[in-house]
Amino acid sequence: MAVNKQFPKSFGLLIYPEFEVLDMAGPIEILNCLILEDGAVGKSFAGSQLYLLTHTLKSAPHVDVLLVPKGPGSLNLNNNAMDDYILFIEDRYRGLSDRPLEYIISICNGAGLLAKSGILNGRNATTNKDYWEQVAAYGPRTQWVAKARWVIDGNIWTTSGVSTGADGVIAWMATMTSQKVVDNVVNGIEWLCARDADNDPFADIFGRHDIAPVQPA
Amino acid sequence: MAVNKQFPKSFGLLIYPEFEVLDMAGPIEILNCLILEDGAVGKSFAGSQLYLLTHTLKSAPHVDVLLVPKGPGSLNLNNNAMDDYILFIEDRYRGLSDRPLEYIISICNGAGLLAKSGILNGRNATTNKDYWEQVAAYGPRTQWVAKARWVIDGNIWTTSGVSTGADGVIAWMATMTSQKVVDNVVNGIEWLCARDADNDPFADIFGRHDIAPVQPA
Repeated sequence: MAVNKQFPKSFGLLIYPEFEVLDMAGPIEILNCLILEDGAVGKSFAGSQLYLLTHTLKSAPHVDVLLVPKGPGSLNLNNNAMDDYILFIEDRYRGLSDRPLEYIISICNGAGLLAKSGILNGRNATTNKDYWEQVAAYGPRTQWVAKARWVIDGNIWTTSGVSTGADGVIAWMATMTSQKVVDNVVNGIEWLCARDADNDPFADIFGRHDIAPVQPA
Repeated sequence: MAVNKQFPKSFGLLIYPEFEVLDMAGPIEILNCLILEDGAVGKSFAGSQLYLLTHTLKSAPHVDVLLVPKGPGSLNLNNNAMDDYILFIEDRYRGLSDRPLEYIISICNGAGLLAKSGILNGRNATTNKDYWEQVAAYGPRTQWVAKARWVIDGNIWTTSGVSTGADGVIAWMATMTSQKVVDNVVNGIEWLCARDADNDPFADIFGRHDIAPVQPA
């Protein structure tokens, strides 16, 4: 089952102290299934994955797609502890020292890291609804869309809270492969996924509204 | 926000080679949120978790609840590689060498391990729909329920494929705490969960039907 030739070949996951495992495990599971669907590993089986840190920020090679999960470690960005990660995001997205990313996908308040790096300036984005205003404050030049399970703006995908990361990655995958491949992945892990970006009951549950840019982009 | 006094105090996760991370990450996220809701960690935040192997099968203390995820490592149970795990499950569930578990919860084809241990004899159970007949064959004395996101039989909870583990743990949690606590957990991670055990489109998608016991319990 071939996927589109344009399909990215390399994925990176930005890991930092106190990231949240489910933010990572959902999207990685999806990608792992897709790779297996593609026949690269031979057998279509949603299965075991090795989770090993392979590179530091300095040694990381180019990746086509960078995934940025959230965690308590990325909630407070004003103490400089995450600055190296934020600079890494800007560097890789803009291709300052290598060719740029093809896509960047944030999960939950991983969007705060993107915002702080400046790459969300003038963009539409979303983040988790529980910590909505706290994270949105890191992107005063961003249009924050509340009722969204994920938001696409060019090659930047931002997803909402935790479990939405898998839905976002499924939707992203659907833009560049066949529905049959996507269905196989979703069915294999029996994921009751949101097929539409605006299938987001949580904006209302938390009473969140759009936040317009407070500074010009 | 207090939870019921009967709420179990200790949880164990049975980890083995080639288990599947999402099987674990969903339920652990749910439990972690609940513990935070309960105030034990002080702040209600679905957050970082340390994943460390703490015990071997021989050194493991009593736990009130044992979670059994799946993985490729638990799909083929006829080569004796998993025998120590299977004996552990029987020992702990039946309380052969300590007091018995209060609950056991399997995720996906983790049900195959439970079946092989004999504790599903004469019980109703479910497992993932993709590998339905292969796993069900490990429990020839079990009534396998196809259209089910999870099945409850006494203190044995079996869930269906991968992502259903979180739904099952949410449902399990709902039986012994308040709906408000459950809602807080679900909303915090923006989980579009199945609230009903029979909300299972995947049995039909894979064309699976109930499998009655082929041997007397």
